[in-house]
Amino acid sequence: MPPKTDTPPAPSDPQQESLRGVRTIELDEEILTDIRELIHEDARISLLNILADLHAADIADLIENLDGDARRYVFGLLSPRVASEVLTELNETLRAALLPTISIDGIIKIVGELESDDAADLIAELPEEIAATVFRTIAAEDAAKVRQLMRYPEDTAGGIMATEVLSVLKTDTVKTAIRKVRQFAKQGIKPDTLYVVDQGGVLIGFLPVSELILQGPGRKMGNVMNPHVISVRADLDQEEVANLIQKYDLVSVPVVDDRNRVIGRITIDDIVDVIKEEATEDIERMAGLVGSEETSTPIFRTSGIRLPWLLLGFLGEMLSAAVLKSFQASLEEIIAAAFFIPIIMAMGGNAGIQSSAIVVRGLATGDVRFGQTGKRLGKEFRIALLNGAILSTLIFLVSYVWFHDIRFGLTVGFALLVVVLNATVVGATVPLLLDKYKIDPAIATGPFITTTNDALGLLIYFGFVTLLYT
Amino acid sequence: MPPKTDTPPAPSDPQQESLRGVRTIELDEEILTDIRELIHEDARISLLNILADLHAADIADLIENLDGDARRYVFGLLSPRVASEVLTELNETLRAALLPTISIDGIIKIVGELESDDAADLIAELPEEIAATVFRTIAAEDAAKVRQLMRYPEDTAGGIMATEVLSVLKTDTVKTAIRKVRQFAKQGIKPDTLYVVDQGGVLIGFLPVSELILQGPGRKMGNVMNPHVISVRADLDQEEVANLIQKYDLVSVPVVDDRNRVIGRITIDDIVDVIKEEATEDIERMAGLVGSEETSTPIFRTSGIRLPWLLLGFLGEMLSAAVLKSFQASLEEIIAAAFFIPIIMAMGGNAGIQSSAIVVRGLATGDVRFGQTGKRLGKEFRIALLNGAILSTLIFLVSYVWFHDIRFGLTVGFALLVVVLNATVVGATVPLLLDKYKIDPAIATGPFITTTNDALGLLIYFGFVTLLYT
Repeated sequence: MPPKTDTPPAPSDPQQESLRGVRTIELDEEILTDIRELIHEDARISLLNILADLHAADIADLIENLDGDARRYVFGLLSPRVASEVLTELNETLRAALLPTISIDGIIKIVGELESDDAADLIAELPEEIAATVFRTIAAEDAAKVRQLMRYPEDTAGGIMATEVLSVLKTDTVKTAIRKVRQFAKQGIKPDTLYVVDQGGVLIGFLPVSELILQGPGRKMGNVMNPHVISVRADLDQEEVANLIQKYDLVSVPVVDDRNRVIGRITIDDIVDVIKEEATEDIERMAGLVGSEETSTPIFRTSGIRLPWLLLGFLGEMLSAAVLKSFQASLEEIIAAAFFIPIIMAMGGNAGIQSSAIVVRGLATGDVRFGQTGKRLGKEFRIALLNGAILSTLIFLVSYVWFHDIRFGLTVGFALLVVVLNATVVGATVPLLLDKYKIDPAIATGPFITTTNDALGLLIYFGFVTLLYT
Repeated sequence: MPPKTDTPPAPSDPQQESLRGVRTIELDEEILTDIRELIHEDARISLLNILADLHAADIADLIENLDGDARRYVFGLLSPRVASEVLTELNETLRAALLPTISIDGIIKIVGELESDDAADLIAELPEEIAATVFRTIAAEDAAKVRQLMRYPEDTAGGIMATEVLSVLKTDTVKTAIRKVRQFAKQGIKPDTLYVVDQGGVLIGFLPVSELILQGPGRKMGNVMNPHVISVRADLDQEEVANLIQKYDLVSVPVVDDRNRVIGRITIDDIVDVIKEEATEDIERMAGLVGSEETSTPIFRTSGIRLPWLLLGFLGEMLSAAVLKSFQASLEEIIAAAFFIPIIMAMGGNAGIQSSAIVVRGLATGDVRFGQTGKRLGKEFRIALLNGAILSTLIFLVSYVWFHDIRFGLTVGFALLVVVLNATVVGATVPLLLDKYKIDPAIATGPFITTTNDALGLLIYFGFVTLLYT
């Protein structure tokens, strides 16, 4: 619980103060009911008081939990500054629903409050004619910046960077640098890092703003800067930017053009969103979903997100059905063989998912690398041999207890061992191959591996049964 | 060739420079081969030159790619400062392998270089008698701090916080605060945030160090601070800390005791690790792994990580086998029913995984909340009805084309619809129930849901077949 403040500052705009603020109100069903009541009664003053105590992220939460009309009503109460913060916090579906209800005038005010990267993202979501109007109205310099940003693909360094960077010359003194920071602050931008450039604008070092006070005011920035600056190109994939920031424990990273001139910066709070996004994406792909699904996603879109893999799985299992049909004679002779179809499928599926998940995650975090494919597959084979042998022994024992038939037990046991070996190796190989051909390996983990292993597993199983019984 | 290089680092040590540094060398197979050659030739000077150009994270990478003796050799070349950085970057298995090879003297030097949270983590991994010796040697104050930190569970705010915090009184002037920051810096600690406390040590506000230069030197901290400070208690789960930091776009968060006095801080770079860790954990649990597996994890431990869910799945599929055995009569009568076992299992499995993944991820990110269980299940039911109807129609068509038997087609189609409905609702319900009883819902996504749905699905399927054919 955040502490109560004993000396409240004199806020000119109470909502503005809450921007960096504290959660004095925790949203729950009770408060939601109260707020719905206040909206119903059109009690603006009471609502404004509540909103003033909420962080923008909590107002976004609140709006997500209201219905259409109430949403627009609450959003309409917000000042442009708070509205701009709330918009960036909302999920895409809701933002798309709210944007058309705002006047062009309102949108221009909101865009004026946003940093360049958020402004670019927002304008990209506007209908074309409104976007054009916005471009005509905002300052030419800002418009050029935003247009530039909109050219970068969304999932690259350029797509997530902001252009508000503070560069100083290596010949500038610490005192000059401090003056520049103060000028920047007057425009409402508080940078955490100064980038030091040479006369040609080329990045040669950096200094955290917090370390300016540790330096003598007369010293040259070129002498106090840290020359070991890690930068990224605008076209670098956001996942690689995230891995870099995490690996080197950075708080922000400058983005440079092909002549090493600073064109933007990415801060770690944007990277936190990227990491969550990428992890969610991996989980979705593992679960056989072709897109992000949130509580507010409509039913038909949700169906469209889930159906593709179900249909592909359907096709794959028709292959399995065809395999079984082709072994109909064996199946009729030994009906008991059908009882073990589920275990053959499940063990193949599980072993395959396990090895593919390890490889996919390893590729994403950089643990699997340097093209050590042979070594990796060798390890998977040995693990599969060990676990497969244990499971085979178990299935032999179970089948012997049930049917008192050693030959059948050996058949099922040996088939299971081969199925586990095959599934494990397939599970590890497919993502490695996909990665080699620059396809996201995560799509291979889940329905794809399971379906492939189902058909292969049943082929192996009934192959053994037929071989040994006919 | 056991190394002994205890040359104390001069302040101008080039390795020290590389700490915040740049990747001047990119590791690849070629450079690895060169480095192995240099190690073999005992070419210390050349190796030291290469190491001086590498970031600690890259040295850790290098060590992970070497064999036992070469690892110890390279690690022995590092100064205590770089060695301490490298140790925190190494994975647990390798750290455990390297620690026993360092002299107690070396360990004490390394601990001296670490921040309190990393020191506590490292000491926790040492054998007891060595840890005791370290405690006797380091300053009593440091030892007390580290002991205190070791008491918090690893996955709580207390477990990941560092105790190096800079608090100032609200009556302090900006000038005094700047002096305190400079004193801190002399001890090698560069804080990014100042915490403002009252006479009783209670947290009442904060100010980023980078904003000190924006304030008049004579102003009181109580007047320039931001009073809207978000803090966390030491026992808060690290995943909730991560959600809070992400939601409110924080760069660091103070940790307070039950009287709101600052006892530590958590920075966003630690949170980045937490987010990756938790996402990896979710993915592992979805894939049926009971622990983290890395390339360097030995075979037998890997087997232990994968086997438990395989065995549980085995048990579950024995239930499926029992279900099939109990329907032996129906199966013998209509052997074609066996052909559709895979599709029934796969569609139930996939639909269940999809709905459970959505709920599990939603619970982790906070998208599913406010106990809207009824609403959630209603939505899942409608999605399953839609997708189930499409799949049912397809299976009816396929089975009609194959067998020209409308009754059988209708049986299979209707069974598939019920199986998809059941699997989807089970997939969404189980994680919600687990979450209610404070069990990590992620364990429900994957083998557990699949296995449950296999047995239930086959029961439903053969229930229909038997009902309609006998």
